[in-house]
Amino acid sequence: MEKYTKKFILKRRPSGEASTDNFELIEEKLPGISRSEILVKAKYFSVDPYMRNRMNNVESYVSPFELNSAITGDCIAEIIETRSDRYNIGDLVIGNLPWQEYSVVNQEKVEIILPAETISSTAYLSVLGLTGLTAYFGLLDIGDPKLGDTVVISAAAGAVGSVAGQIAGIKGCKVIGICGGEEKSDYLKTYLNFNDTIDYKKTPNIRKELRKRCPEKVDIYFDNVGGEISDGVFYQLNNYARIILCGQISLYNLNRLSMGPRLFPQLLIRRVKMQGFIVYDYIKQFPEARDRIKQWVLEGKIKYSENIIDGFENLPTAFLGLFSGENIGKQLVMV
Amino acid sequence: MEKYTKKFILKRRPSGEASTDNFELIEEKLPGISRSEILVKAKYFSVDPYMRNRMNNVESYVSPFELNSAITGDCIAEIIETRSDRYNIGDLVIGNLPWQEYSVVNQEKVEIILPAETISSTAYLSVLGLTGLTAYFGLLDIGDPKLGDTVVISAAAGAVGSVAGQIAGIKGCKVIGICGGEEKSDYLKTYLNFNDTIDYKKTPNIRKELRKRCPEKVDIYFDNVGGEISDGVFYQLNNYARIILCGQISLYNLNRLSMGPRLFPQLLIRRVKMQGFIVYDYIKQFPEARDRIKQWVLEGKIKYSENIIDGFENLPTAFLGLFSGENIGKQLVMV
Repeated sequence: MEKYTKKFILKRRPSGEASTDNFELIEEKLPGISRSEILVKAKYFSVDPYMRNRMNNVESYVSPFELNSAITGDCIAEIIETRSDRYNIGDLVIGNLPWQEYSVVNQEKVEIILPAETISSTAYLSVLGLTGLTAYFGLLDIGDPKLGDTVVISAAAGAVGSVAGQIAGIKGCKVIGICGGEEKSDYLKTYLNFNDTIDYKKTPNIRKELRKRCPEKVDIYFDNVGGEISDGVFYQLNNYARIILCGQISLYNLNRLSMGPRLFPQLLIRRVKMQGFIVYDYIKQFPEARDRIKQWVLEGKIKYSENIIDGFENLPTAFLGLFSGENIGKQLVMV
Repeated sequence: MEKYTKKFILKRRPSGEASTDNFELIEEKLPGISRSEILVKAKYFSVDPYMRNRMNNVESYVSPFELNSAITGDCIAEIIETRSDRYNIGDLVIGNLPWQEYSVVNQEKVEIILPAETISSTAYLSVLGLTGLTAYFGLLDIGDPKLGDTVVISAAAGAVGSVAGQIAGIKGCKVIGICGGEEKSDYLKTYLNFNDTIDYKKTPNIRKELRKRCPEKVDIYFDNVGGEISDGVFYQLNNYARIILCGQISLYNLNRLSMGPRLFPQLLIRRVKMQGFIVYDYIKQFPEARDRIKQWVLEGKIKYSENIIDGFENLPTAFLGLFSGENIGKQLVMV
């Protein structure tokens, strides 16, 4: 019996701000299942800022999406047919899969997930997934937090920032989150126990605000946004501060280079270390890190929020929402 | 008998480009010599780019020069009177001393130097001094050069750059120097054995030029200048490249923030580490480093040039020349 699937392809590359016009929903016939392959039904998709860069035809640490081919993203899926001797029907797997309701993929493309009783399977796309791991390795390996350090996190209510801030709290740091809007501010302070927040929508002068809120200055800056927010933080760094260059989401939707003040002298005189990283560089340490994060979640030391939009058709909208700062916590799409 | 000295004071702080108007030459009576003090006659002064920042009234890792007080700089001086039981008349000492022909200073302010037979005493202001040590620690500690790495150095014919490039050569790296003018280019290639050079005055597109000269891309960037030259290098970095943030001389003479493209995404996707440093952070390792550099000099593996201007009165001119890129190697003033 022939089987069809809905599928989102990259219809045209964005110039500047991405929009729904860049995507097209098509229907496509599924191929047959060969040996070692499985047929899966997508259950949850993760949408992530780095995918914006894959929409450009530019070399990066991941190759660009191809025109007229499926967008791909991290996905939890259920196996509904199998010619793999590794998996059974009904198994939940995770992998970087095409934006399709159904996919035929090789067994090597996915890993099985065995959700703990107390942790939902979606956690494997959020706090136990690449976003949680990104927060973990960025903060602990590059940031090297010490008891009493002051840590500033941009996009603090986002999927990565919210976890990074809580890990910093576990390490005994004073944690200040930069976020947009009162709801996020409250969420960080009352639900995630951030020590303080700065609402950049209300306080355009981040530098001044930081001077007020942490006269002791900043030891670690976990940067997810770049641009003017980061400029403000750069002036308030301590000697030997560490900048974790995790994301630059404020720049991803621009079709030309953004200009900003040259602040490297600020980094020089304070002997600052700034380092970019990609979570995949730590792949060998993933299992150990996941165990530690899971433990913190079970102990109630790390809370996580997932913002789940229902409906395969909403994938582009959910993705685009990342850039207008709409979500709190991890943005997922339920199929 | 009363003794007088010539002295350069900071007359007014520069707004933008510094000029001779910022300095004033005065004559002043010397105080008497108290216990533990020495009277020294300056022989050589070192002029250094970082001193430009001290002319501004801005907090940094060294305090600003005070208005109507002496400029200070590294100096080799001879003791001509002493109430110290540590030093004898005729001893050569080194220290951060006021721009004066004669000074009365506490014995704690200076260290004795015992020049090797084959190395001139001025080397203690250049290759064996803070500039040589800056090159040494920046390249080896932050740059962490590996055999076969490609190393790019800006202001390569300057005091720090020329030593950094030669140490990179000793470590088996391919070394490319960015400098201004054919004379410097020749000097680097034929005298200091740099593998290649880029004359930024002839080739404004550093990015394109680097693509041509090192298609294998750049593993270490030893940055002394900042600004547009650095922008060009940032596009040609390898994964896991290291940027040694040593100087930003192109920005020091500006009276407002220079604007440039926001290139942090380039650093992020390539997992680049950028780190500022101050040579004094390594002060405990100075003796060991100095011994190693001295050995390299004696073996002919490190050559150094000193550009010595004669006459105390020329101190401001020699200092200002640093910013127009006039000097090759270390700029000194003989008193």
